[in-house]
Amino acid sequence: MDEKIQRRISIAVDMDGVLADTETHFIQYYEAESGEKVDRKSLLGVPENLAFPDKTAVRRYVHTPGFFRSLPLIPGGVYAVKTLMEHFDVYIVSAAMEFPLSLYEKKQWLEEHFPFISWKNIIFCGDKSVIKTDYLIDDHLKNLDHFSGIPLMFTASHNVHSNHHHRLNNWEEILKYFEIIRRNA
Amino acid sequence: MDEKIQRRISIAVDMDGVLADTETHFIQYYEAESGEKVDRKSLLGVPENLAFPDKTAVRRYVHTPGFFRSLPLIPGGVYAVKTLMEHFDVYIVSAAMEFPLSLYEKKQWLEEHFPFISWKNIIFCGDKSVIKTDYLIDDHLKNLDHFSGIPLMFTASHNVHSNHHHRLNNWEEILKYFEIIRRNA
Repeated sequence: MDEKIQRRISIAVDMDGVLADTETHFIQYYEAESGEKVDRKSLLGVPENLAFPDKTAVRRYVHTPGFFRSLPLIPGGVYAVKTLMEHFDVYIVSAAMEFPLSLYEKKQWLEEHFPFISWKNIIFCGDKSVIKTDYLIDDHLKNLDHFSGIPLMFTASHNVHSNHHHRLNNWEEILKYFEIIRRNA
Repeated sequence: MDEKIQRRISIAVDMDGVLADTETHFIQYYEAESGEKVDRKSLLGVPENLAFPDKTAVRRYVHTPGFFRSLPLIPGGVYAVKTLMEHFDVYIVSAAMEFPLSLYEKKQWLEEHFPFISWKNIIFCGDKSVIKTDYLIDDHLKNLDHFSGIPLMFTASHNVHSNHHHRLNNWEEILKYFEIIRRNA
């Protein structure tokens, strides 16, 4: 029998907005601070930093100690990443370098919620254009537009009007997408 | 006149052992702790974690708060990186994820000594095989061996017996090497 050594397909997975529910967290922080509950619909198609009545809020929250450590999970992410890892090389790739205080908090958050991911597969960077994986799942155009592999846009309120990348709305759709990739590989 | 839009050549630069003098720092920490001054010659060709009489020392130091923040500079690194940035895209790529406490310290260290490097060009990762730059300057075989671009081995005591990568002994040699690359580009 011929032995076939095949390189596994690699997938880079963004954190904020893809694994971690920054949107819900922003809304909760905003309500706790101002007493005002912002309707999620008002965030549609608006950049996150401009989506709240107080335009300084988001910028302040991402520099607040504890913000990244306490992010809630996007539903289905933990199960999906674990499932993808059976057949793909999965890397967590976060543009964390913009917020240096978040570096340790993000690592701790991953250790809590994704303890099955090795430190070898975690990347905190600035510009994602130098990441050489086959796929990138991300909610931000600034990352998807300059990625050298196949970009997949994870739906977030801020990107609902963008249509130049293949869109996947949730982790269920991602699992289905890669199940087809795997069968055709 | 024809306008020629040319992608700049990209260079990934390792931190420990290339920009930061971990070797000297290990020797100093060891002397401060044990009173014993280890001769640098005794480190030749030996993995760093086995190079000191107390084999637990290096492992302890890299987990000691302040170790990475207080690393001395490798001579010529600051000038060389600044010079390279005139003609190349330079990325700092450190396998910092193994030591989560070091993440913030390494970012602070870079801000102090290399304030001219944007956060967009800094990458803290585990496995460097997913970094897509044209060159990688690194002292560790584990990083150089699996790099997809052109690996360049920066001389350190632990790698003096390895000869399967192009060796550059110091930052002067690196500047000369890339001056030739630039002229031939």
